[in-house]
Amino acid sequence: MKSDLDRLMRELNLDAIFVIADESPNPYNDYLTNRARAGGDIVKKRDQEAVLIVGGMEVEIAAKSGLKVYTVYDFGYAELLQQHPGDAASARRGLYRNILRQLGVAGRVAPYGVADVADTLRIFADLRVDVPEVEFIFDSQTAELFARLYETKDEREIAALQEAARLTSQVVCETRDFISQHHAEGNAPGSRVVNAQGEALTIGAVKRFIREREMALGLDDPEGCIFAQGRDSAFPHSVGEDGDVLQVGRSLIFDIFPRGLASGYFHDVTRTWCIGYAPDEIQAVYDDVQTIFRRVLDTLKVGEDSQRYEIMTLDYFEAKGHPTTRSHPGTFDGYVHSLGHGLGLNIHEAPSFSRNRRSSVLAPGMVFTVEPGLYYPERGFGVRIEDTVYFDQTGHLRTLTDVPYDLVLPLRG
Amino acid sequence: MKSDLDRLMRELNLDAIFVIADESPNPYNDYLTNRARAGGDIVKKRDQEAVLIVGGMEVEIAAKSGLKVYTVYDFGYAELLQQHPGDAASARRGLYRNILRQLGVAGRVAPYGVADVADTLRIFADLRVDVPEVEFIFDSQTAELFARLYETKDEREIAALQEAARLTSQVVCETRDFISQHHAEGNAPGSRVVNAQGEALTIGAVKRFIREREMALGLDDPEGCIFAQGRDSAFPHSVGEDGDVLQVGRSLIFDIFPRGLASGYFHDVTRTWCIGYAPDEIQAVYDDVQTIFRRVLDTLKVGEDSQRYEIMTLDYFEAKGHPTTRSHPGTFDGYVHSLGHGLGLNIHEAPSFSRNRRSSVLAPGMVFTVEPGLYYPERGFGVRIEDTVYFDQTGHLRTLTDVPYDLVLPLRG
Repeated sequence: MKSDLDRLMRELNLDAIFVIADESPNPYNDYLTNRARAGGDIVKKRDQEAVLIVGGMEVEIAAKSGLKVYTVYDFGYAELLQQHPGDAASARRGLYRNILRQLGVAGRVAPYGVADVADTLRIFADLRVDVPEVEFIFDSQTAELFARLYETKDEREIAALQEAARLTSQVVCETRDFISQHHAEGNAPGSRVVNAQGEALTIGAVKRFIREREMALGLDDPEGCIFAQGRDSAFPHSVGEDGDVLQVGRSLIFDIFPRGLASGYFHDVTRTWCIGYAPDEIQAVYDDVQTIFRRVLDTLKVGEDSQRYEIMTLDYFEAKGHPTTRSHPGTFDGYVHSLGHGLGLNIHEAPSFSRNRRSSVLAPGMVFTVEPGLYYPERGFGVRIEDTVYFDQTGHLRTLTDVPYDLVLPLRG
Repeated sequence: MKSDLDRLMRELNLDAIFVIADESPNPYNDYLTNRARAGGDIVKKRDQEAVLIVGGMEVEIAAKSGLKVYTVYDFGYAELLQQHPGDAASARRGLYRNILRQLGVAGRVAPYGVADVADTLRIFADLRVDVPEVEFIFDSQTAELFARLYETKDEREIAALQEAARLTSQVVCETRDFISQHHAEGNAPGSRVVNAQGEALTIGAVKRFIREREMALGLDDPEGCIFAQGRDSAFPHSVGEDGDVLQVGRSLIFDIFPRGLASGYFHDVTRTWCIGYAPDEIQAVYDDVQTIFRRVLDTLKVGEDSQRYEIMTLDYFEAKGHPTTRSHPGTFDGYVHSLGHGLGLNIHEAPSFSRNRRSSVLAPGMVFTVEPGLYYPERGFGVRIEDTVYFDQTGHLRTLTDVPYDLVLPLRG
């Protein structure tokens, strides 16, 4: 968590960090400024207060960060603009040089942020020339500094995650109720779902309902949700086709990951539904997913390595005859993603459960998803169950998501 | 526009471009993939078709890009993951090397995209070692390649911008109607605006109305709008305080810049309102802003340098006794920003009207805002008027925004 920053900087032998920003969404800046959303660059020397440097128009917003705030004019930006008319790149080059010099930054400095790739490469090539007393460090260990901070959450963050969980769970339950108020044109598999006027219920209409409820409840949904039916649901990242009509007896994967509008903290939950009834082959796969989902939740404990649970899931699915990325690297069938991921101001962050990434020793304050899934494009369905959970300060696992697990979504309309 | 890409690559003597992506929103990727939203890295050699390389889970979505699609597995990613267990950075390093090698990329290659700063620096430092036949070019001219593409829009883009304009204008008009259905507790300046039940109308409630209407109409609002009253409105980027109650006779700046949910193209409009009546000093400043707003719109024409209109605005405001960034560099009073900016998949892009940036010769297909404003924090008000306009193929200036300019917002409730 954030209070570990100076300790980790010492461990990495960093004298300072330098977080740059442009107009791109920037979780690093959000994290350090308590999401003041003032933009701006941040300099923090080890064991010293962080400094936020913003444009003149952002000075009032920046005050909300709680950081020490300067404007670019405190670093000669007005003069730089006059020296470099029409040449924003050169003015910015001078600004960065002045910031590092005036703040006395030297030694091992790690750059962070999210920014334009070409600008990033040019800015740091220039700074190596302009401020030779700084050595920029960006090896893979140093690059992980924030990943390690994000890995555990403090109480304020847990409260924000709880609020996002409560509101997101409400949206999922309301969506289920909304669909259930419809009726089907028949009982046969593939029968269309319609409203009282006989109008077809499309995925587009369901997504519109979801978005309106998110907005009304104060959730922000930058990426949009996944609401995918049948074969589409067998591609974990297919978002669904707006024009498709909901049908009886098909698999529906509803994966929603909005964030609190003010807090910026995400929630992530997935449910698989079959309208009317569940065909045997979907039910059988669902049972396998739910079995390992429960087994993982029952065994998760602090002090264990996160990858242990990925291996447990791979072992179980393979024993049940499902292909996995371990038994069949590159497979599109079976278990094709990993068990879960941390989340916070980023929808994906540490801890990871993937065999491809750095594993974590599970600890109090860690917040993450558990989301086993199985996918069969040729058979036309996919199944995933996902909750977001966390370890509280006493090491107990708590589930943040509050949505029933029923596979069958009965129509009452 | 996009069809200029090969010509500009030739002009810059580039053999290829390499657009990298991570989970960050990435307008470069959106632009080249017709916003397929599949993520992925893009390689385009000069005079050849662009190639999109995505993860296995994104292969179906990526097909919507119209580009030639590969997955990471076509470049040995499964083997790389096995060679580097738990070390995503090394696997990615190998992947990029394989992509450039297998696609035969060599010579002068320009990197683009939006990505994690530390990752960007490490990836290109590694690639310089791993693929020495490539020289990465990121000088300020090359970095502007996409800015020059974005500068003019093709017909498909204009249609998307028109649709975003139509919907955004509707939201602004509906917001005005929503407020006008309220009444005031009195006529005196500062009297509170309340509903029929006598409940105060807050900025938070107005913003909730705005968000719900945006969502219902299919607009996405990643940054949230500005709805700022009184002294807050005198800071151009203050977004407004949710808890503040709307009052009679104060300046309200409403600046809204959503994008089409599917298209991703932005619109940008600002209106200044005074509820009930306009105090003389606000009306006088409003008249100055509206005068130069109209004068600029009346004189804008293709073939002129964009900065001419910035100078015209500075001259006019200074003649009327307002401080500007030219007469008073670093000022917080008077005219503190520039006249306008292009917009498309980015809310700010070329052409620019700022004296601090590269100017443009105005041309058919250019879409941009015209937004003069005056700000007086000590006097407790700000004024801005903004429309988005474009030059059609015959060189006629067309206004995309369709919202009345009335300063006074009368209450009918």
